Amino acid sequence: MKDEHAGTTINRIVIIGAGFGGLRAAKTLRNTGLDVLLIDRQNYHLFQPLLYQVATASIEQEAIAYPIRAIIRSWDGVRFRMAEVTDLDLDRRRVITEDGAVDYDMLIVAAGAATNFFGIPSIEQHAHELKSLQDAVDLRNRVLSLFEQATLVMTDAERRALLTFVVVGGGPTGVEFAGALAELVRNVLGKDHTEEIVGAARIVLVEMLDTVLTPYERDLREYAVERLEHLGVEVRLGAAVEAMDGTRVYLSDGNVIPSHTLLWMAGVQAASITRAIPVDKERGGRVPVDEYLRLVDYPDVYIVGDMAYVEDEADNPLPQMAPIAIQQGEYAAKNILAHQTGEIAAAFAYNDKGKMAVIGRGHAVAHALGLKLRGVIAWLAWLALHLMMLIDFRNRLVVLVNWAYDYLLFERKVRLITGHNVGSLPGTTVEAAPSDERLPAVDVMDIST
Amino acid sequence: MKDEHAGTTINRIVIIGAGFGGLRAAKTLRNTGLDVLLIDRQNYHLFQPLLYQVATASIEQEAIAYPIRAIIRSWDGVRFRMAEVTDLDLDRRRVITEDGAVDYDMLIVAAGAATNFFGIPSIEQHAHELKSLQDAVDLRNRVLSLFEQATLVMTDAERRALLTFVVVGGGPTGVEFAGALAELVRNVLGKDHTEEIVGAARIVLVEMLDTVLTPYERDLREYAVERLEHLGVEVRLGAAVEAMDGTRVYLSDGNVIPSHTLLWMAGVQAASITRAIPVDKERGGRVPVDEYLRLVDYPDVYIVGDMAYVEDEADNPLPQMAPIAIQQGEYAAKNILAHQTGEIAAAFAYNDKGKMAVIGRGHAVAHALGLKLRGVIAWLAWLALHLMMLIDFRNRLVVLVNWAYDYLLFERKVRLITGHNVGSLPGTTVEAAPSDERLPAVDVMDIST
Repeated sequence: MKDEHAGTTINRIVIIGAGFGGLRAAKTLRNTGLDVLLIDRQNYHLFQPLLYQVATASIEQEAIAYPIRAIIRSWDGVRFRMAEVTDLDLDRRRVITEDGAVDYDMLIVAAGAATNFFGIPSIEQHAHELKSLQDAVDLRNRVLSLFEQATLVMTDAERRALLTFVVVGGGPTGVEFAGALAELVRNVLGKDHTEEIVGAARIVLVEMLDTVLTPYERDLREYAVERLEHLGVEVRLGAAVEAMDGTRVYLSDGNVIPSHTLLWMAGVQAASITRAIPVDKERGGRVPVDEYLRLVDYPDVYIVGDMAYVEDEADNPLPQMAPIAIQQGEYAAKNILAHQTGEIAAAFAYNDKGKMAVIGRGHAVAHALGLKLRGVIAWLAWLALHLMMLIDFRNRLVVLVNWAYDYLLFERKVRLITGHNVGSLPGTTVEAAPSDERLPAVDVMDIST
Repeated sequence: MKDEHAGTTINRIVIIGAGFGGLRAAKTLRNTGLDVLLIDRQNYHLFQPLLYQVATASIEQEAIAYPIRAIIRSWDGVRFRMAEVTDLDLDRRRVITEDGAVDYDMLIVAAGAATNFFGIPSIEQHAHELKSLQDAVDLRNRVLSLFEQATLVMTDAERRALLTFVVVGGGPTGVEFAGALAELVRNVLGKDHTEEIVGAARIVLVEMLDTVLTPYERDLREYAVERLEHLGVEVRLGAAVEAMDGTRVYLSDGNVIPSHTLLWMAGVQAASITRAIPVDKERGGRVPVDEYLRLVDYPDVYIVGDMAYVEDEADNPLPQMAPIAIQQGEYAAKNILAHQTGEIAAAFAYNDKGKMAVIGRGHAVAHALGLKLRGVIAWLAWLALHLMMLIDFRNRLVVLVNWAYDYLLFERKVRLITGHNVGSLPGTTVEAAPSDERLPAVDVMDIST
């Protein structure tokens, strides 16, 4: 590899982002005598794969977030700074944060991805996303609040619109979220509310392509659709969402779905900091890199994880998922260490250990170690893997308690409407008309649960 | 007792508030054939006694909040409505909520209490309170954010002011919070931050009277002060906080404490809905009631818990605490049932089972069953009692996991800065000048952890 840095002394490594990629890079660089500064705007590492479970009241937000300072405490040479990175000065080798600038000798940018609304204003305005911990909590609050609101007097049509959730995107996130939401409604809220209310609930999964979980093989994809429909999810394939006006969702096939809640899980784009990187971006704003994950014109800058545009042997871009970010973070760190001794590293190659997606209690699909799994076995594998991946003992235990509660007792205790604007149905859009239509008190009560 | 209602048929009982009092009243009225409507602006019951532990990152908010619908599900005849009560029409026997009116035959008002700033504007503007779940989470976020901000370049005086927490009120809440905060700083944040930063932290407990925990006997009160000081808390007795300008706290003894954070735990007042009750209020806005906890002019309205003004044998007002609210809620419900049969109930009398307050790991004071306890035994009793009181199995287990983690490993995993304005140090006041003073990047980093 080009080794401008071979032999040259590298003192400070700056890593932007404490997600899967950045954290692994920092871990790989610990105890090496290097001065590593990890920067993140959050003070915690977020275990994104389980965000959808927070959004569906299965686990508490604290169970999938872990204080970064607690993680790196025992990592010699690694320091943390909680700050928002506002700009990059690659020529002067500086990272600009809201709290001042930081100089680096080598930089690893692992800022991850944000939701991609594909520039559709009405969707950007009305859709809900699921990228941050707060997104998940807001979503949970909203779903629960809408069910409370649905106990008020309104027409059946109004109630149905109020409780119709349109999930966009047939990828793992959309599929797992739709399945978990369906179970929340059926198994849990079904106990809290009348048949009239729960019966009005509707979950629609809209996917532009003619299948969900594209990367999986046909039979697993069909199995997934079958499971979703079994859970009561309406699967709409070959249709795209074109607009949302707050109370109606407009599909490309001409259909209009009366709904107050559009959940956008249809795509991501590289974090906005990429605008500070002077290269032509690939699809989704991802940054093209050389075979060593470095910027072509700045070999002292590595791009890893969701932000990096890397193609596999078949020239397809690598998907944006945790295992890839982790491998890239480790690879970048090892290359930096190799520089010290002037070693030549091999080009990055993703070692695909497989993929899995869960579709409600006891069902999942998996491609792993050359095996195709589905059903309970795949689900148990999913459970085990994610529990192991959860970063520390306590979180594992807390999540296990929640899951046991959920799966054994069909109960979810975390269905709390939290936040500042309590009582005022947080998150419900102004368009949510029903609460404005009121009949005399006695009638109001007659239908309430 | 006066029994205007003896024999008369009572159909609907409305209970305002799902706190300790209201929830117990509803439980007592379940399965009695009566139509009971429980109204709360939250969808969960909050276990207030442990709020301070959420504020000090010991346990997650979900561990002390429990969905009301899950609690009442098995209670025949009890329904729930999530709504804000905006007014009362006692003459027409109606409760007015933001979502319409509700008629009642008998009403139990158990709306609890809110923080009492004693009408000091500067304190109302700058002080932080600890009454709601969100208050606790905001407080946690603020404390953790201030420690992150303290890693920036600033003078020692600035850092000291930034990390000085003035806790006002030597009652159980103030004492327990101050102790838990001191342990958070020393045992947990001490591992995350440099000695320079942790050493700058300062916790001052200000109490107007010449002692903390007034209702306890002298030796226990002295023990409490001794413990607090052992934990590094500065205890300032005989001084009141008179004003706060965002960066300085002004005491009645002329002292001025440079601090960005004033924690107001000095008093509560009856919930604002009492303004809809046409009687002269007692101290703290509490509502005077007859010996049966009813409004004198409206015997069909019961006031229970923190809102009710009731005197003990010694003509002292009963304190505002959970056990009293629970007993009053049960008493009111039983009286209502007695009406059905025209029975005569006895006047309300509080059965004092004792009180306890914890002061950091392994130390507590307790007056129970005529016994005076302190130290580890009192602390273990406190642990056991609160675990038993926590409303359901799962929460008990989750709390236990957290406590074990905290007490055995001196670790608190919940120290997360959550919320919308991440990165921007949520909750820090604009006056928090230090972050605005910046030196060149390298220097910035030199002192950071």
